[in-house]
Amino acid sequence: MLAKPIVVKGKVLGGGRQPVVFMPLVARTVDALLAEAAAVLRKAPDLIEWRVDFFGDIALPGKVLDTAARLRRIAGPIPLLLTRRSAREGGHAVELSDEAVLGLYSAVCKARCVDFIDFEMSSPPEHIRRLRGISREHEIGMILSYHDFAGTPGLEALSERFLQAERLGGDIAKVAVTAKRPQDVLTLLAATERSAQALKIPLVAMAMGGYGSLTRLFGWVFGSSATFALGASASAPGQVPVEDLNAVAEILRRALRG
Amino acid sequence: MLAKPIVVKGKVLGGGRQPVVFMPLVARTVDALLAEAAAVLRKAPDLIEWRVDFFGDIALPGKVLDTAARLRRIAGPIPLLLTRRSAREGGHAVELSDEAVLGLYSAVCKARCVDFIDFEMSSPPEHIRRLRGISREHEIGMILSYHDFAGTPGLEALSERFLQAERLGGDIAKVAVTAKRPQDVLTLLAATERSAQALKIPLVAMAMGGYGSLTRLFGWVFGSSATFALGASASAPGQVPVEDLNAVAEILRRALRG
Repeated sequence: MLAKPIVVKGKVLGGGRQPVVFMPLVARTVDALLAEAAAVLRKAPDLIEWRVDFFGDIALPGKVLDTAARLRRIAGPIPLLLTRRSAREGGHAVELSDEAVLGLYSAVCKARCVDFIDFEMSSPPEHIRRLRGISREHEIGMILSYHDFAGTPGLEALSERFLQAERLGGDIAKVAVTAKRPQDVLTLLAATERSAQALKIPLVAMAMGGYGSLTRLFGWVFGSSATFALGASASAPGQVPVEDLNAVAEILRRALRG
Repeated sequence: MLAKPIVVKGKVLGGGRQPVVFMPLVARTVDALLAEAAAVLRKAPDLIEWRVDFFGDIALPGKVLDTAARLRRIAGPIPLLLTRRSAREGGHAVELSDEAVLGLYSAVCKARCVDFIDFEMSSPPEHIRRLRGISREHEIGMILSYHDFAGTPGLEALSERFLQAERLGGDIAKVAVTAKRPQDVLTLLAATERSAQALKIPLVAMAMGGYGSLTRLFGWVFGSSATFALGASASAPGQVPVEDLNAVAEILRRALRG
């Protein structure tokens, strides 16, 4: 199997079974978030991602920390990933300054109220360096991510993005592009396959959009260590309902055994 | 949609819905074949393929013609494809001389007891030329096919195979290779995608083996006009049960709509 295991506190996510499934939470209020988390957890994700850019009170760090702690409590053994996506890379409306984002992530790490953070590679290099130090000190895993909502870069450019995440010290490299035609799907999967062999860290790769949904369904065969599936609500275009993902995965696992 | 429609007697196979599903018949005796055909037809194939190299009496053209006529009667509106695969290209034990194969196919065309024949591109060029003339005269569609049971040739070599089938006058170009690693799947799909745009005729592309099963499930998105699914028994490695194929196709169609 090309896909490297994602290890959290000494345990392999998904127990070694592929694909590993991340499900996003995108509610605006605390009450809606807790309800969404409960609904999503019933669908047995391997990890839940709180997309904090959808959260109405993102500008109040105390509120974010408190809510993260509550989410983590109801998640029990399921790891929690906190992601603040900028509008530029597909995130929700509320904008924060780069300094405020760094401050929020730093506070989350110090409070140890999540297992992973997702930080954009397009952030100021000095912020990446500082957050890497803080997250490591507090044993919080760091995903370094790249998004392209306009299209799919070429094979070399994509491979470089994965390598860059590793060079910057990420624990996981994430690349999400937009597939506008079938060829884009093949380019993303080829970069995934090559990078899964080249990198020491696990990587997560996907293409967004209708054609991109193929990469969400089959990317694990080409070395993507996780896929985002729709639990309650989608956080990005082309996310597939987890029931569909599971049905296809079951068929694929059977077919791959030959 | 990249995949070109396959037209039989003025009707588009599958009614324009992708993927179009071919199911093989591989029984040894007439009785077993008729039973297999009945079982396969219950699974609603778009076309059934009689793999006559599995047939015990392949050396008796009269018996083959008679059996083809019986199969066609029970198939009703479902088109029938007759395929004799050589042992070299993955076929069953009984060997015939090239002359005997040409004679068998010619008799089948003259009797008009099938809708399509599948002839190997590795056959003597003069035989391809003659059979093309005979099949055209009797309005029998001709698939020109290439198989590689050892591996997956490169993108350029694969693209050339598709083009060759068109140059030789085929109504459909078929290429089947063996995927030994995930990269082979991407190579086959890239050649499919490119050739679907380059060719005027429909093409059918697949990779065999465990990884190859991915191409059977989603090759249609990349321009393959049909896929072979397991009805009763498999005729090649990695064929997926039609129930699985249909389940994945339903999910994919939904995902592609976005």
